[in-house]
Amino acid sequence: MTKLRVHNLAVSIDGFATGEGRTFEAPFGHAGQRLMGWFFPTRSFGSMSGHGDEAYGPGTTGVDDAFAAATKVGIGAEIMGRGKFGPQTGPWEDETWQGWWGDEPPFHSPVIVLTHYPRPDIVLGETTFLFRNVSPQEALAEATELAGGLDVRLGGGPTIVREFLEADLVDHMHIVVSPIVLGRGVSLWEGLEGVEERFAVEAVASPTGVVHYVFTR
Amino acid sequence: MTKLRVHNLAVSIDGFATGEGRTFEAPFGHAGQRLMGWFFPTRSFGSMSGHGDEAYGPGTTGVDDAFAAATKVGIGAEIMGRGKFGPQTGPWEDETWQGWWGDEPPFHSPVIVLTHYPRPDIVLGETTFLFRNVSPQEALAEATELAGGLDVRLGGGPTIVREFLEADLVDHMHIVVSPIVLGRGVSLWEGLEGVEERFAVEAVASPTGVVHYVFTR
Repeated sequence: MTKLRVHNLAVSIDGFATGEGRTFEAPFGHAGQRLMGWFFPTRSFGSMSGHGDEAYGPGTTGVDDAFAAATKVGIGAEIMGRGKFGPQTGPWEDETWQGWWGDEPPFHSPVIVLTHYPRPDIVLGETTFLFRNVSPQEALAEATELAGGLDVRLGGGPTIVREFLEADLVDHMHIVVSPIVLGRGVSLWEGLEGVEERFAVEAVASPTGVVHYVFTR
Repeated sequence: MTKLRVHNLAVSIDGFATGEGRTFEAPFGHAGQRLMGWFFPTRSFGSMSGHGDEAYGPGTTGVDDAFAAATKVGIGAEIMGRGKFGPQTGPWEDETWQGWWGDEPPFHSPVIVLTHYPRPDIVLGETTFLFRNVSPQEALAEATELAGGLDVRLGGGPTIVREFLEADLVDHMHIVVSPIVLGRGVSLWEGLEGVEERFAVEAVASPTGVVHYVFTR
C-alpha cells in the first residue's frame, strides 16, 4: 500500500523549520544553512547535486547519510508546497521560473506543486511539475495514482507538512533536530498538540550533534 | 571554581517545559506527568523519594538514571523560583505552606527561593529555604558563598532558567527532550535565540525515547 513519507525535515530545538525573512537569496531566512548543516557533508547530498543516484560521490557515510539516503528509496511521486518550488507569492508574474534545480531536478518523478495559482505543467528531464489548487486529500489521491504502487514523498515546506499532519495523512516522518535556538520563523509543531499519539517515535543522536526522529504508524 | 548547573530540565519537542493551567493538583498543567515520564522509573528517583542517597533503591540504571543521578553530585546550594516551591502567587496568605517535600526535603543544602515576597527562613531537616527578592547575579553570589566551594544547582522552573540564561550565568545545563507536542505552556527557549553559541552541545538518545542534551562551556 502506498505510504506518504516525509524525509530530512530539519527543525531547530525550539521547533522552527525555517527562519524569518525568506527571500530568493536567503530561502531559509535568518536560519541560513544552519538547519541543513548536517546534510551537506553527506554522500547522499553529493550524489543528489549532479552525480546521479549511481555515482558513489564524496561525503560522509555515517548515520546522517543513512537517513538522508532513505528519501530516495521507493518513491514514485512527490507533493510539495509552492514555497519549496520558488520564492514567489501571489499570481505568477513570470513563468520562466522553473524551480531551483536546473535542467535535471533530483526528483525523477511527477511532482505536484500545491498552489492557489495553477500554471501549465513543466517537464524537466525525468521530473514533471504539476501545479494544483486542491486539498491535501485530493493531492494525495492524484500523487498515489501517479506513483504507480510506490510511495509518495511529502517534500515540504513545513506549512505543507503541518497541513497534511492535521489531515492525518502522513504515514512516516523523519525529522532532524539541530541544537540551535532560532527564536522565530515557521514552526513545524504549531497547532499539532498531541500529534505524537498517532505515531511510534524513535530517536537516534548523531555524533554530528543532530538528533534523527522517526515517526511511524 | 563554583559552577551554576541545571539538571533534569524536561521539555517537549516543541520547547515547552511545563503545560498550561498549573494548579496545586496539576503542578505541570495539562502536561501532567508526561514530561517527567523518563525520570520516575529511575533508581535515582526512587532514592530521592525517601530511601536516602545511600540506599540502592528500585528502578532502572541505564542512561536516564545516569543523567538523573548527576544532579546530586557536588552541589552545595540551590536556587529555585517561587513557582517550584509552591503553587501560590502574590503575597503569602498562608505561611504554613513549606513546599511540596515534607519534613525532609531532598535538597540537603541551603535553597534560595526567588520571590517578590520575602518571608522568614524555613529549616526542614538538612534543608534551609531562604526567600529573596534579588537579581539573578545577587542570588548566585549568595548561593556561591553558601555552597562552600561546591557547585550551585539552578533548580527551575523554566522561567528562572531562562532569566539566568539571559544573564549568561549558566555553566552547565542538562535538558531532556520528550517526543511529545505540548502545544502551549511555558517555553524554555523563548527570547533565547542563538543561546547555543555560548555552549558546546552534546546529545544522546535514550532507548526510552527521550534525548538528553548537555550544554557546557
